[in-house]
Amino acid sequence: MERKSFSQMDCSVAQCLEVVGEWWTMLIVRDAFLGVTRFDVFQQRLGIARNVLQLRLERLVTAGVFEKVAYSEHPLRYDYRLTPKGRDLWPVMNAMRQWGDQYAAPNGPPIRLVHRGCGHEATGTVVCSGCGQQMSATNVQALAGEGRPQLRRKSDLARS
Amino acid sequence: MERKSFSQMDCSVAQCLEVVGEWWTMLIVRDAFLGVTRFDVFQQRLGIARNVLQLRLERLVTAGVFEKVAYSEHPLRYDYRLTPKGRDLWPVMNAMRQWGDQYAAPNGPPIRLVHRGCGHEATGTVVCSGCGQQMSATNVQALAGEGRPQLRRKSDLARS
Repeated sequence: MERKSFSQMDCSVAQCLEVVGEWWTMLIVRDAFLGVTRFDVFQQRLGIARNVLQLRLERLVTAGVFEKVAYSEHPLRYDYRLTPKGRDLWPVMNAMRQWGDQYAAPNGPPIRLVHRGCGHEATGTVVCSGCGQQMSATNVQALAGEGRPQLRRKSDLARS
Repeated sequence: MERKSFSQMDCSVAQCLEVVGEWWTMLIVRDAFLGVTRFDVFQQRLGIARNVLQLRLERLVTAGVFEKVAYSEHPLRYDYRLTPKGRDLWPVMNAMRQWGDQYAAPNGPPIRLVHRGCGHEATGTVVCSGCGQQMSATNVQALAGEGRPQLRRKSDLARS
C-alpha cells in the first residue's frame, strides 16, 4: 500500500507520525534508547532487511532524530546516535511501552524501569505543567491553537 | 511493503505498535478523542479510502480499542466509540502531539489543551509514580522484567 504523506496535515500527531509512523521506526528508536548505535546490532536485533533498515536510519538522520558519528575511517563506519530531538521521543516510546505492559504483556512487563532519582520501580504518570495534577483524556479540553486560528471550539475540531 | 507482525516480539512497545502501528490508525484514534464516532465523519476528515478505513476500524474493534454501538436499525449503522482500553491510548497520542508541537509546528500548535482541573493551558509532563519527580530518558534505568526473565541488565537488553 502506498505511504501517504501526512506532511500537509495541520496536526501535530500527524507530524509526529510523519517522522516515526513507519512500521519499524519506533523499534529502531527504542533500541537506540537501550544503547544500540551500530547498524549491524540494529539489524540483528530487529531481524529487518538491511536495505529497509538503511532507509529508515537515513530518514531518521534527515529528520534530525539521529546523527551519524564516524567510529571508523577505513572503512568508513558510523554510529547512529539520538539527537536531543530524538531523545525527546522518550515520552512517546514510554507511553507505548506502558500501554503494551497494561494490555499485551500476559507474562508481565518485559522491561522494568527504575527511576534513578528515587530508586522506585516506576511508571510514568502524565501531569499538568500548570498545577501538577494528573492529565487524562477526560479532564482536558481541546481548543484551536495558533496553528489553526480558523477553529474555535472542540466541536469545530471534530467537524473540520 | 508487507506488514510484518510484531505479535511474537517480547516487547511492549512492539505490542502497542501491533495495534496502532498502521499509518492511519493513530489519526483515527485522535479523531475519536475529538468526539468523532461516525464512519462518514472519519472518512471525510481523514480523506482515507472507505475500504481502508473499514479495515482499520474493524481491526480496532477486534483489538478492543473501539466498540460498535448501533445508532440506527434500518439501515444498521454503528457508532465507533473508544473503550477504556482505547482511552488509555491518550498518553501515547498526547506525547506524539507534544513532540509534533515542539518540532513540527512552525505556525504554533494547531491545538491547545486546557486542563479542566486548573484552567491552565497545559502540556503534560511525565512524572514518576513513586516520587512525583520528572521521568526522562536520562534518569531511568531499564531492567529485565517478569516477561523477560532471561535478561538481567540494560547491557543484556541492548545485546538481546
